Amino acid sequence: MADEVILLDYWLSMFGMRARIALEEKNIKFDYREQDLFNKSQILIEMNPVHKKIPVLIHNGKPVCESLIVVEYIDETWPGENQLLSSDPYQRAQAKFWADFIDKKVPGPTRLIWAGKGEEQEAGKKEFIEVLKTLESELGDKTYFGGETFGFVDIAFIGFCSWFDAYEKLANFSIEAECPKLIAWADRCLKRESVAKSLPDSEKITKYIPELKKRLGIE
Amino acid sequence: MADEVILLDYWLSMFGMRARIALEEKNIKFDYREQDLFNKSQILIEMNPVHKKIPVLIHNGKPVCESLIVVEYIDETWPGENQLLSSDPYQRAQAKFWADFIDKKVPGPTRLIWAGKGEEQEAGKKEFIEVLKTLESELGDKTYFGGETFGFVDIAFIGFCSWFDAYEKLANFSIEAECPKLIAWADRCLKRESVAKSLPDSEKITKYIPELKKRLGIE
Repeated sequence: MADEVILLDYWLSMFGMRARIALEEKNIKFDYREQDLFNKSQILIEMNPVHKKIPVLIHNGKPVCESLIVVEYIDETWPGENQLLSSDPYQRAQAKFWADFIDKKVPGPTRLIWAGKGEEQEAGKKEFIEVLKTLESELGDKTYFGGETFGFVDIAFIGFCSWFDAYEKLANFSIEAECPKLIAWADRCLKRESVAKSLPDSEKITKYIPELKKRLGIE
Repeated sequence: MADEVILLDYWLSMFGMRARIALEEKNIKFDYREQDLFNKSQILIEMNPVHKKIPVLIHNGKPVCESLIVVEYIDETWPGENQLLSSDPYQRAQAKFWADFIDKKVPGPTRLIWAGKGEEQEAGKKEFIEVLKTLESELGDKTYFGGETFGFVDIAFIGFCSWFDAYEKLANFSIEAECPKLIAWADRCLKRESVAKSLPDSEKITKYIPELKKRLGIE
């Protein structure tokens, strides 16, 4: 029996992008189901009753939730090609540490940039630049975060880069001026078919933000 | 060469307790080094320069940080006995989902209980009871969260139970009245040597909280 793979997702979500990229890396055909997060579907509520959030991967009827867990599940379920996490426990732990760092440190300040204004936005920008510099220092002169091959940490972070244009325009700064290596890394990632196919157009995101804020009742 | 295993930890930390329990489950001898979190040691800052937090497992000179990552690393590095995570990808993803749920939902309200007062403390209590009920519903009639064997989710949550006495006294409620199955589960866990050896005495925690608050400048 062929695997049935459904992804509940939302185009703008960098967490959803992680699941898309991982599936593409493994060449898994999947049924992408765009969700309306302002009017949650029955299937989303049933498949992720605890958080009611995307992405949810539904594999042969069984749901897997939380994007990093989804990526790891994909890597373990289809181990054949493009291994995303090393088989060495120490390398795995390091990759998980940095993916966790991204989850803990990036969403807060970036939200202040796109949803805040004035001093709050400035504080978000300042904090975000610090986080980026930590990531740039970890990347160093490597091709990818894990070394020579594209993997878990790259997947964890690259989705945020599709929002870089929006962050820069909203808070008036240049990420490339602050972190040139990180931008070169993002460009390398974007050359991969899995990433290019999975990330929305940056300009489309920038243009959509005023509408998003309106829908969220911000400002 | 024998493994050199050092744990940088702090007796009161439920995150540190996870690492201790996992090492005990694997029968790994380790050098426990109590840390003064109000005056961080050079070794802690060197081994966890990003977060400067305990627990840090130092295995043959190499640090692993973030408690759930530490537990998984221990499970992968010493796979021989007492497997903590299933080898089935779906079961692993489920266990990680619940451990992540604990990390996202428990520390916030429990901090309001021990560090807050008045309405704030009441709100913490209310939220904590909801979280406990979600966990009790996931546990159901199983022996442990993963089924018949003690594992990852049990380790992720049991440390918090050493604080239950303090929460109950501070916010004047009974966890057993709200969630009897969870208390029966905690009692089962506490019968394991790994847990009994790793958790501090509940009364000692309750008594220490006023001093902790004073050191943190609370109240």
